[in-house]
Order: sequence, then C-alpha cells, then structure tokens
Amino acid sequence: MHQKLKLYNTLSRKKEAFEPINPPFVGMYVCGPTVYSNVHLGNVRTFTSFDILYRYLKHLGYTVRYVRNITDVGHLVNDADDGEDKIGKKAKLENLEPMEIVQRYTNDFHEVMLRLNNLPPNIEPTATGHLLEQIKMIKELIDLGIAYEVNGSVYFNVRKYNEQYEYGKLSGRNIDDLIAGSRTLDGQDEKNDSLDFALWKKATGGHIMRWDSPWSEGFPGWHLECSVMSHKYLGKTFDIHGGGMDLQFPHHECEIAQGTAIHDTEPVKYWLHTNMLTANGQKMSKSLGNSILPDQLFSGNHSLLDQAYSPMTLRFAMLQAHYRSTMDISNDALKAASKAYHKLMNGLRIVKELRYDESVNADQNEKAIQQINSIADGIYRGLNDDLNTAVAIAGLFNMQKKLNAIQIGQLQPESLDKPTFDRMVNVFIEITEDVLGLFEEKPSNVEVAIDLVLEDYKVAKSNKDYDKVDYIRAKLKAMGLSVKDMKDRIEWAYEE
Amino acid sequence: MHQKLKLYNTLSRKKEAFEPINPPFVGMYVCGPTVYSNVHLGNVRTFTSFDILYRYLKHLGYTVRYVRNITDVGHLVNDADDGEDKIGKKAKLENLEPMEIVQRYTNDFHEVMLRLNNLPPNIEPTATGHLLEQIKMIKELIDLGIAYEVNGSVYFNVRKYNEQYEYGKLSGRNIDDLIAGSRTLDGQDEKNDSLDFALWKKATGGHIMRWDSPWSEGFPGWHLECSVMSHKYLGKTFDIHGGGMDLQFPHHECEIAQGTAIHDTEPVKYWLHTNMLTANGQKMSKSLGNSILPDQLFSGNHSLLDQAYSPMTLRFAMLQAHYRSTMDISNDALKAASKAYHKLMNGLRIVKELRYDESVNADQNEKAIQQINSIADGIYRGLNDDLNTAVAIAGLFNMQKKLNAIQIGQLQPESLDKPTFDRMVNVFIEITEDVLGLFEEKPSNVEVAIDLVLEDYKVAKSNKDYDKVDYIRAKLKAMGLSVKDMKDRIEWAYEE
Repeated sequence: MHQKLKLYNTLSRKKEAFEPINPPFVGMYVCGPTVYSNVHLGNVRTFTSFDILYRYLKHLGYTVRYVRNITDVGHLVNDADDGEDKIGKKAKLENLEPMEIVQRYTNDFHEVMLRLNNLPPNIEPTATGHLLEQIKMIKELIDLGIAYEVNGSVYFNVRKYNEQYEYGKLSGRNIDDLIAGSRTLDGQDEKNDSLDFALWKKATGGHIMRWDSPWSEGFPGWHLECSVMSHKYLGKTFDIHGGGMDLQFPHHECEIAQGTAIHDTEPVKYWLHTNMLTANGQKMSKSLGNSILPDQLFSGNHSLLDQAYSPMTLRFAMLQAHYRSTMDISNDALKAASKAYHKLMNGLRIVKELRYDESVNADQNEKAIQQINSIADGIYRGLNDDLNTAVAIAGLFNMQKKLNAIQIGQLQPESLDKPTFDRMVNVFIEITEDVLGLFEEKPSNVEVAIDLVLEDYKVAKSNKDYDKVDYIRAKLKAMGLSVKDMKDRIEWAYEE
Repeated sequence: MHQKLKLYNTLSRKKEAFEPINPPFVGMYVCGPTVYSNVHLGNVRTFTSFDILYRYLKHLGYTVRYVRNITDVGHLVNDADDGEDKIGKKAKLENLEPMEIVQRYTNDFHEVMLRLNNLPPNIEPTATGHLLEQIKMIKELIDLGIAYEVNGSVYFNVRKYNEQYEYGKLSGRNIDDLIAGSRTLDGQDEKNDSLDFALWKKATGGHIMRWDSPWSEGFPGWHLECSVMSHKYLGKTFDIHGGGMDLQFPHHECEIAQGTAIHDTEPVKYWLHTNMLTANGQKMSKSLGNSILPDQLFSGNHSLLDQAYSPMTLRFAMLQAHYRSTMDISNDALKAASKAYHKLMNGLRIVKELRYDESVNADQNEKAIQQINSIADGIYRGLNDDLNTAVAIAGLFNMQKKLNAIQIGQLQPESLDKPTFDRMVNVFIEITEDVLGLFEEKPSNVEVAIDLVLEDYKVAKSNKDYDKVDYIRAKLKAMGLSVKDMKDRIEWAYEE
C-alpha cells in the first residue's frame, strides 16, 4: 500500500530503501547516555528521534529488537584515552560510590524518557554488565594481531587495521589526513601510534572503578562496550545503528573497526545520526549559560525561559524539526509548539467522538474522499522519506480540517465511504499516538474546576434548588469527592 | 527527643536498639526481585516495608546507602542447585533473548515501585553486572579450602564451614537436623554432600546464559551475588540486611556462610524479614487462582476483586499491618483501607491550610497542648517500636481530630503555643508524606467537573449574565482550556 521506507545512511551519504537483513526482524542499536550528570536536551532529542523510528518500524509491522546501552564506566573526560573517568570524577567530587552516581543519573534519565513518552528499549545493557564479554573480545583482537598490550593496557592498532580495511569511512576521514593532523607522540604516551585507541586501560591511582583482567587491574575502553553489546544481542551484522552525530568520530568509527576486524564483515547496515540542538541560535554549552536541562524546561526554572513547557510540548517541538537538521530551542518556538500540540489534541478529542452510521444513505462526496486519502498518503510519504515528522504533522493538520468540518456539520461522515472514514480515523489516531508518541496532557489543576462547581452548588443551595444540589453531589461523588456543608462555608473533601 | 529505634533482629530473635556501625552512615541491603515475571504482591509488600525503613532512617537524620539488587541470572527453578534458570526458561518459552525478559520485568517492577511511591535505592546492582567480582570471591573461597570444584562446577563445603562457624543460626536450623532431613546423594549428584550449595555451575546444553570462568563456561550460583554486591557496596560488615522471610533459608543462611568464611567476621548486624501475604485468609498461589498482580489490583481486573484499588490504597493497606505479621488481602480490607486513606488525605488538605497568627493573644489550652504533644510522641513511639506503622497511623488519626477541631472553629490555633502548633503541623505532614510515603491521588476524571462547569456556563449565557460568563471563561483559561460556543452546543477545548 505504502511506498518503501527510506533512511539516510551516513555510511553511503544517501537515502537508501530500508531492507532489513532478516525480515520481519529488525535489530537496532542506539548509543545511550553516559550517566554522570542529568541527561541534556541534545541527548533527549537523539533518543526521541530513535523512539520515533522504533515506533514507526513497529507500526509498519516489523519485530524490532531495540538495544540502547547505559555507559557506566570507561568514558573518560574529553572523550580521550587518558584522564579521569567521567563517573569516577563525579563520584569523587560528591564523595559517593561511583555506582551511586550511575544509579542517580540512570533514574533521572529514565524519568525524563518516561515523561516524554519514549518507549523503553527491549534491552538496556550496561558496560559494567559486560566486562567478561569485553575481555573476551580484547583477547580475540590480540589473537588476530590487531591489538597489542603495553604496560597492562591494550590498544587497537589502527594502521594495521587500515592495511586490510578502511578506517575513517563513516565520518569521511582519510587515514593520511588523520595522521597529518594528529599530535606527535611525545615519549610520554605508551601507544605505538597516536591513532590507536584503548581497549583496556590499566587503572592508575586515581581510578576507583577497576576490575581484574589478564593484562591488569583496570577498565575497558569506551568504544569497546558498544561493539560487544551490539554483537551479543543483535549479531555480527545488524540493521540499524544510531546516535548523535558527535559520535561519528571517533566512537562509531572505532566500533566499525572493532566489529569488522573481529568478524571480517561490516557490523552495521544502516548508520543513522541525529543533528545538534541550539538555544536561540547558539550552540548549547554550560560556559555560555544557555544549557537547559529537561527539568528546567518542564518547570520553567531557567533564565532563558519565559514559562514552563510541558513534556509533550517539547516532544512536539522536536517532531517539528527533521532529525538530521539542527533544531533551535527558543521561547517563540516552544510557544508555537505548545499551541500546535494543543490544536492537535483537540483534533484527537474530536476524532475519538466521531461515529459513522451505516444505515444513513448519503450522497458520496468524491472530492472529500479523494482529499482524505491523499492526505493519508502524504502522511506516510513524509514518514517514509527518512522519517520526516514535520511533513507528517502538516498532514495531520490537513486531516484535522476535515474533522473540524464534520464537527461543525459541514461534512457528513456518511458522505465518505466507510473505508475512507475508517482510514481517516485510524491514521489520525495511530500516527498521533502510536507513531509520534503524543498523548493528551490533562489539566493538572482540577481544583479550579471543582471550586467553580462548588460556587454553583452554593447558589443552588441558597435558591433551594435541591434537584440541582443532588445532581452536583452525585457528579462529584463519581469523582470520588463529597461536599461538606459547613457553618460558614462549603468545602469539598475526598469521600471516605 | 525521641526514644531510640528498635528493630527485631532475626539473628537474635529479639528487638534490639538500632546502633549503626559507623553513624551517621547506615548500610542497608535488601534482596530484590528475580525478574522473570511480573512482580507479585508479596514481594511488593517486602519492598514497601523496607522503603518505610529507608524513609524513616533518613527522617531520623541518618545517611543511608540502600542497595537492592536485581537477580538476572542464576536463580534456578525450585530455588535449587539443579534445573533451569528461571529467566532462561521464560526466554525459551517466549522465544526471546534472556535479557529481553530481564528488561521487560525490570521495567514492570520499576513501574509498580513508582506507582506505590517506593523510593529508588541508591544502588540497584545486577548479578550479571558483577560476574568478575563473583569469580573473584569463588577463587578466594577455593583458596581458603572452603569451596571445591567438580566437573567445572564449584560448591561451598557446608560441613567444613560448620567446623569453624555455625551454619543454620539465622533460620534456627541445626546442621545435624539438616543432615538428617536431607536426601541422600544418589550418585547422580556431583556434590560431595547434599548440604553443599553451588557457587558456580557449568552450563549444560539447556542453559543459554553462560560466561567464561576459570572452571567452565557457566553461571554463578544464586546465593553468591548478594554476598558479592553487599560486600562491594557496603563493606565486610554492614548494618541491615532485609528480605522476605522465605529467603531466610537457604538464601540468607548461605550468604552468612559465604561472607563469614571470606572475612572471618559476621557480615550483617541486623537481619530483618517481612512476613507473607494471604488472600482471603489463604496463601496466595497460582494454582489456587488467588494470586493477584499489582496491575490487576490497580485495574480491578481479577475475579476476586469487587473493584479497582489505587496504588495509595494498597500502600495504606500494607501500612496498616505490621511487617512481621501476615497481611490479608480482601475486598473488605482494601475498602476499609481506601476509606481510611482518603480520610487521612482530607487531614493533609486541612493541615496544609492552617495558619497561626502570632499577633493574636489567646488563652493557652493546656489540655490540647498536652494532648497534641502526647500524640506526636506516640507516633514516634510506634515507629521506634520495630516500625509499627499501624500505631503511627492511629496517632495520625488522633492528631486529625485536633485538625478537624481547628477547621470547624472548636479549637483556636493560637490557643496552642507556637512550638506545639508547628509540631502538630510538621509531624502530620512529615510522617504522612516523607515517612509513610503517602500522597494525594487527585481525581483523574477532571472532565466530569469541567462538564458541570459548562452546564453552569450555558445557564449564565442564556441568562445574559455576562459577568459570570467572563468569570468562568477566565477560570477555565487558567486551566489551559477554552470554551467553544457552537451553533447547537457548547464544548471545551485545549487553548491553542
């Protein structure tokens, strides 16, 4: 019925038709957070983008195994091979056990994902949960002659790898340029070559996270975990690998090298990368003071924010940009997203009320029938075009015009043929809820409405309109509330 | 100010004054779920009981490191040393990767904990995340001569241990009785003695979860992980170890043996155990059809349930029983709990509205002052008496009588001295919210109230009472809603 899904593959630098290796199964791996601080908005955008892909693949009927890891060791400051572990550093600063840091920020991450309605992945493995597997892969790389030990640490030999394969092809880097651009080893460095990267690092005095290995008490290199866990849960070659575009080099390049060297085959068929977030047109960074955390956005508690923006408003704003474009966070953009999100939710309320009476004989409105089907096609065309959610949303708003026309009586449901009516309803609901993951955020300040009702109750009572008094009491009782007629005032309470 | 906290120590079989090893720090380890199915109500009760302890210790000013593990490998069916892994078995049944099973039921567990307002522990370690540490401890036990290898598996030598220490002391079992009661080895068994338990098991064909070790490709024994993780995060001897009473033997007995053998010291100072749950007086079990899952309770979707019961109703019901007594789940008990919970929430709404005007000069009500302080003391006395939450709740309801008296004008806030007024307010709020972890579940069906308001709006409009029309519009706007005056009806919508 629909055209094929096409996805932009960073490896080929073009949109390709998506053909899973072993349909209907799809294996998808996304690099998750390093849990040493509250998850930042840029990461949230990445995970939301891949949530849409996960949801859409399931909507298309695929059986997806979605693996998103938690990096809880081995990611060093500056993403380098030397220096402190990000988590170990934070643990020392806060005088906590590193795993307390891991737990706190894993919890924060999960809470943000939940509020944004991102589905949990099928497997969420941790680096520390796969140390034996990492040690095993290092042994294999050493046996292949592609990794070497120095002073208890083990490094991947990039030049050696490049003799047989191509290092740099994902990020479009040429090894000669990389060599020219890299610093000269200063004699301090134990690596044979500055291009090489760590698979295992011997723990020095400062490192509190450390484990036994055949080479030293130490910890795994950052790039290794993803190769190990994607291999364990998705196989030697799997369908989709995703992450933020800042991970293309060196992280994903190193993953390709590790996987290719071990299995002599390409580890991933489609590499997908999300673009960056800006705030008022500037790169977000702590030093510029324009870095906004999800919780600050949800509470409005940030100097750059005029007001609070709800999780669904943020999600909607993200969906309005294409995942491969930069996305700008600003009050204007968020306010516009809030407006549009609420508009869509009004559409959702309308569509769920619509009924089609098959006993009614109405003239067929061929033009409306054609338009509705064309709009539905357009929504799928947008999603199939490398997940263009903005096009899909525009289509939903076009569909909503038809819903509004039905609501105000300008368009009779039965003037559509039944399949078209059903398609209109199903596409609107399924794309909004199942694929885009948007749901209705109900008003939280229910007390305002209850107080209004009590004012009405008071008037009814003083008018001795006891039918109305009873009616209101019954309705509030259905909400689990009772009315307390006190000497000087009327209050509500939970029914006991 | 308060008497000391006393806790019932299973090891000594008496209530003991709680004296942490290294105050103000408290280390607490609780055996978490084996994530091969939805968490059952009995487990939920255990985790809720220890949540109260965690909250109360923090309330008393302790800095608590609360570790609750996730068992994701090594727990075999029948809690035995032979047979299938519970998770591996479920994975085969559902044709999934074991870690998909682990993820699904870890998510379910976390969701139930969240709905019940159980705080996350400070560290939630997994068995598969500590394989290297487990291998290391096995090596140490072999080196000590207390463990032995047979055919790639490693067992703990219970008789040897018992020569120097006392096996069975936690559960009150005598090793001679255990020997008399144990089955004779039938020659099939590779253990030297039927009392011995597995530290490492060689994986046979049926086991899909397996890792390299010095002895075989296999997996760790169930009892080992808790010794390893409690040792890693809480030290050789820590303050509190908790779990369901069904874990006393063999699980906790084996933990004591492992920890004692390794460190030649008692691993835990206070052992706490929660009692079982029954349904209508009978033990809950799948075969009797009276096993109720948390989600079934929250939805009311179970043949034994008359209605749905909210998470806070369940929590309240659990708090009404002492954790060392059996607790019976029945419609009557849950309905009574719902009623009492809502009553307490009405108290909470009242207490948060109370104000004390220090400029008012009122006669001091010495009797009320004495009563309020006495009630507050009684609440703490209950909690200090081995966490008697039922006594604390009774105290809160006594306090609530004073709150009601103030609300209806029978007791003037200023007739209390300011410290007593503050104590009344603070104790009521802190015990209810911080210690018991109860919060106000607001009505979910806000639409009922909004529809009532719209009926009022319609009357105002037809009466041309435009002040009221504007007033209602403004109030609804504050809720993020707008009124749509349509040709034939009035509806509300989200403000766009």
